[in-house]
Amino acid sequence: MNLTKPTLLLDPRKVKENIAFMKEKADQHTLDFRPHFKTHQSKMIGEWFKEQGVKKITVSSVEMAKYFAKSGWNDILIAFPLNINEIKDINKLSSSVNLYLTIENKAALTALERELINDVGIYIKIDAGYGRTGIDWRNTEEIKVLAEKTEKFPKTSLTGLLIHSGHTYQANSTKEITEIHRTSINKLSEIRKHLKKDSHSLKLSIGDTPGCSIADEFYEADEIRPGNFVFYDLQQYKSGACKLEDIAICLACPIVAKHENKSTLIIYGGAVHFSKEYLMEGEKPIYGYGIKLSDEGWIPWSNKMLITKLSQEHGTITVTPEIFNKFNIGDFIGFLPVHSCLTANLMGEYIDFSGNKYDHLKGQKF
Amino acid sequence: MNLTKPTLLLDPRKVKENIAFMKEKADQHTLDFRPHFKTHQSKMIGEWFKEQGVKKITVSSVEMAKYFAKSGWNDILIAFPLNINEIKDINKLSSSVNLYLTIENKAALTALERELINDVGIYIKIDAGYGRTGIDWRNTEEIKVLAEKTEKFPKTSLTGLLIHSGHTYQANSTKEITEIHRTSINKLSEIRKHLKKDSHSLKLSIGDTPGCSIADEFYEADEIRPGNFVFYDLQQYKSGACKLEDIAICLACPIVAKHENKSTLIIYGGAVHFSKEYLMEGEKPIYGYGIKLSDEGWIPWSNKMLITKLSQEHGTITVTPEIFNKFNIGDFIGFLPVHSCLTANLMGEYIDFSGNKYDHLKGQKF
Repeated sequence: MNLTKPTLLLDPRKVKENIAFMKEKADQHTLDFRPHFKTHQSKMIGEWFKEQGVKKITVSSVEMAKYFAKSGWNDILIAFPLNINEIKDINKLSSSVNLYLTIENKAALTALERELINDVGIYIKIDAGYGRTGIDWRNTEEIKVLAEKTEKFPKTSLTGLLIHSGHTYQANSTKEITEIHRTSINKLSEIRKHLKKDSHSLKLSIGDTPGCSIADEFYEADEIRPGNFVFYDLQQYKSGACKLEDIAICLACPIVAKHENKSTLIIYGGAVHFSKEYLMEGEKPIYGYGIKLSDEGWIPWSNKMLITKLSQEHGTITVTPEIFNKFNIGDFIGFLPVHSCLTANLMGEYIDFSGNKYDHLKGQKF
Repeated sequence: MNLTKPTLLLDPRKVKENIAFMKEKADQHTLDFRPHFKTHQSKMIGEWFKEQGVKKITVSSVEMAKYFAKSGWNDILIAFPLNINEIKDINKLSSSVNLYLTIENKAALTALERELINDVGIYIKIDAGYGRTGIDWRNTEEIKVLAEKTEKFPKTSLTGLLIHSGHTYQANSTKEITEIHRTSINKLSEIRKHLKKDSHSLKLSIGDTPGCSIADEFYEADEIRPGNFVFYDLQQYKSGACKLEDIAICLACPIVAKHENKSTLIIYGGAVHFSKEYLMEGEKPIYGYGIKLSDEGWIPWSNKMLITKLSQEHGTITVTPEIFNKFNIGDFIGFLPVHSCLTANLMGEYIDFSGNKYDHLKGQKF
């Protein structure tokens, strides 16, 4: 492969294995599988989901829903609190697609009822402990009012209760993740009981990759919406949700300078390629792990090679003297990203080891 | 203006004033003005520089050089350590444009000499204290060897010595910035003396926006290459390089949820819009300052309205109860970005208050 500048490499085998892993898990637990497409944002990668029998998807924006509707997806949940300002596009989309929207307050639902043209399904967003957004799971009365309002209006039907347990990303052990997973689902079950609904009329939908990757039990959950698992990344690796070998994308960057006295390599690869997302390695933020590139893929290094600083286009890699001497200016090093969604969003396309390119909504070149 | 989703607003008057301010400063100190275009990355905004008499520009990638060459710029410095893997595009560019490259080691210069087809100018990158990359300013022998090698080869001519004093971004006072500014230029002067060059044959080129904005003296510097000043941002404001009123872009985001018990507003606007760059406000990271939008522009709020959390698409704004009650779901709030270069790079286009759109390399829609 002839690399010239920072390039986002993709390993199709790993991607397909990650999809198969999660699809099998969903099947095994008789869960609806509605993967989140915000990580890859690629029509071509979407086709690999279709090949494995996936029919429903989740997205995080109207724009993304439009993008995937164009490549034949017709059962789409926008798992982001309704932005009523986009009602025109929502009405257009719902004329040709089974569209599901996320509601978490009366104001948005009232505005929706005023402007909606076609039928849509509604998920009520619950906060089961993450604390970002959604109705607090203890506010059962508020949830009930919203559920009744949704059912009363002829164009909206109540499809499910939705959570995103984003706090699994900050968990310190897989035990903690499974505990968050268990209690979050049980909170949803409580609400469903309170609403006097059975599982056929009201889906309990959960979404985080760590929980879905690690858990062996899904209790009363009906649907899973993980997204990041398609590529995984260092955040997921740190949380215990995947092995380093499962990470399916890496950013290849050329070395442009070497500083022997500081034992650093400077790469062309910065915040506009990786994003500024970091994780703590001891006391220090790091922005990527170096891996060993070959013509067919990559393997982890035995010695750690970490991106320890990142500015707009420069990355600083701190290495051992042994590694320092192995590399020349102009050589490419691959790096596993901290947060694959953000890296893919910045790079706007993927390339595999046979030179095939794959689209991303942000690049849209294909 | 009819906003529907996160939108990057631009105030042309402020942009033009910022350009005029820096251009006048350069003229007043008889400095070459070679503004860095990596902040705006816009051909249309580039035209406003032309209108003010700017003829030379700086970019940070070959791709950016190609983009601006297409809109008539023909004196371009790529102020990033040479990535020899892009030699093909470099040769193409230098056939039609006066191209200047940045060199900081013999390996890159040797590779360049092997592959170069057309004449180019060379800037030697010096590290005058920032510590990221460049030849340590004390290594005068190494610099001399590189300078001689550059001059000896027929297709490369030695144009200048280049620094980027990025540590002014971390400075705690304008006094500290002017001190870094002064000492950095003086270090370059020392090197020039050592190389026995006069100012006509070897330019001293400096680049940081804080130093160029604040300094009243430029000592022996010959050229300035600031970039961020075109928009400024909260980082620059914190460093004392600009007033809040000088910041020329803001990101308008709709409110999608309100949580009274936490006094938070949730906006559609996250890491894929702002970037994850933050600055510390007391002990806490913040990702943007809320401002008051009107039909013609924006003004700062008297009460602080800060983005205190940011995930992929969600932003969390912590507000006072008074502000909380002022806003409804669906309303737009504008935010000044922490790092305008990264925000513009993610958004890929600008819109002004008359509804005119402006291109960005990443969007390339115009």
